[in-house]
Amino acid sequence: MTSGTIHGVGLGPGAQDLMSVRADRLVRGAAHIAFFRKAGRPGHARRIVEGMLRDDAVEFAMEYPVTTEIPLADPRYNAQLSGFYAECARHLATLAQGGADVVVLCEGDPFFYGSFMHLHSRLTGIVPVQVVPGITGMSGAWTASARPITWGDDVLTVLTATMPEAELARRIRDTDALVVMKIGRHLGKLRRAVAAAGREDAAWLVEHAAMPDQRVTRLVDAGAVAPYFAILLIHGQGRRP
Amino acid sequence: MTSGTIHGVGLGPGAQDLMSVRADRLVRGAAHIAFFRKAGRPGHARRIVEGMLRDDAVEFAMEYPVTTEIPLADPRYNAQLSGFYAECARHLATLAQGGADVVVLCEGDPFFYGSFMHLHSRLTGIVPVQVVPGITGMSGAWTASARPITWGDDVLTVLTATMPEAELARRIRDTDALVVMKIGRHLGKLRRAVAAAGREDAAWLVEHAAMPDQRVTRLVDAGAVAPYFAILLIHGQGRRP
Ligand SMILES: C[S@@+](CC[C@H](N)C(=O)[O-])C[C@H]1O[C@@H](n2cnc3c(N)ncnc32)[C@H](O)[C@@H]1O
Ligand SMILES: C[S@@+](CC[C@H](N)C(=O)[O-])C[C@H]1O[C@@H](n2cnc3c(N)ncnc32)[C@H](O)[C@@H]1O
Repeated sequence: MTSGTIHGVGLGPGAQDLMSVRADRLVRGAAHIAFFRKAGRPGHARRIVEGMLRDDAVEFAMEYPVTTEIPLADPRYNAQLSGFYAECARHLATLAQGGADVVVLCEGDPFFYGSFMHLHSRLTGIVPVQVVPGITGMSGAWTASARPITWGDDVLTVLTATMPEAELARRIRDTDALVVMKIGRHLGKLRRAVAAAGREDAAWLVEHAAMPDQRVTRLVDAGAVAPYFAILLIHGQGRRP
Repeated sequence: MTSGTIHGVGLGPGAQDLMSVRADRLVRGAAHIAFFRKAGRPGHARRIVEGMLRDDAVEFAMEYPVTTEIPLADPRYNAQLSGFYAECARHLATLAQGGADVVVLCEGDPFFYGSFMHLHSRLTGIVPVQVVPGITGMSGAWTASARPITWGDDVLTVLTATMPEAELARRIRDTDALVVMKIGRHLGKLRRAVAAAGREDAAWLVEHAAMPDQRVTRLVDAGAVAPYFAILLIHGQGRRP
């Protein structure tokens, strides 16, 4: 029996018609789909493809273990996540070895801060794996802001808000254009870092880019909490003839 | 008469099926398309949509003025380019004011180092302008390299190889993951900067990502010249449970 293929498919920032033609074809044709979600939630990626799946598609929901009790620095945190990814990879490998193709749904682009990478590294060399790139959440965000992110020779720095405050401030000071991902409960710290870098007036917060509840605000006008889908932007000001 | 709309449409890195469903629909339906090209060349963006256009589509090729005689630092260089963009924008505005929708073809994502931005800034407020984000060339490049670009809290720095060598080296030293765009005749300088940063062994050159002649090589094995479509990558090594 020939092995099936595991496809890590980038879905883009949220709107169904921002999926690539290749992703659209794979998602609509899939007999098996898999996706990550928090326990008890529908799953962000799964929601994006609502209404597109075959009636007989077999769904494999990969539910993150509840790790809120364990601090991130504790080695048990990593061990638990690692075991979870290994178990998911094992199940996908079994499906592929049985001849099935599986579409793994990925928000944005799979290789850009995505969870699929943890399956990819475990499946490579075991079964065939293919990746379909996608429009990133940040492309969705700067398009929503209706302004270009980089001109001419602009330097673009992409950070996650999980970094220490001083390090955030240093890097925000030292770049032309800026994208900050994974904001969540770090919004207060990020705000202080942007202010310390003297760039509060240039910063924008984009929530739910390319989704029905898309929202673009100046950072100074934003609320005290950010949703999971939120990106901070500072637009570059480079050469523009 | 209602005004038409100018659509800046991201085509993605090159493969037709990596265009978004929205872009595909706009390109196939367009009565008017416009694209930049060098004089006497077919145009990179135009080549991507070969075979997709309506038979009766009216094409507007925007040919860059030949500026090779004028050094980049000379104010006449900027003046000439600026006049060119103004003229293109004027023509597009006239079409839209006559009621026509126009699709402007853009490589990758329009708002990420794209020429369309120079039309966007001139057309905004004059006629309706819409932007369709696209998969960037860099997403195509790291997908071609078959390895994720950023994990966990990795910092990603995006540079253009046009920067001074010392500045390139400093920034290459100070990042986890790296993307360098616009390499062309700057490959020698970029190589020296990567070596000065001590990261030659981690650097990959991706040429023509997602195109028929895609090529992925380690920087140390790459030739002396890079084509227009070339991106340098250093993959992040962040947290991976
Ligand atoms: C685990 S990362 C996944 C990134 C994804 N692979 C991509 O290419 O954009 C999750 C982060 O992506 C950002 N994000 C992704 N899509 C977004 C969207 N449509 N609007 C706002 N933020 C988004 C948020 O910062 C979120 O915290
Ligand atoms: C003027 S910029 C346009 C970037 C484009 N808007 C994007 O989103 O990727 C041109 C540069 O993009 C990079 N590039 C774009 N597409 C590429 C591809 N398919 N393969 C390699 N490099 C690419 C090259 O570095 C090239 O010099």
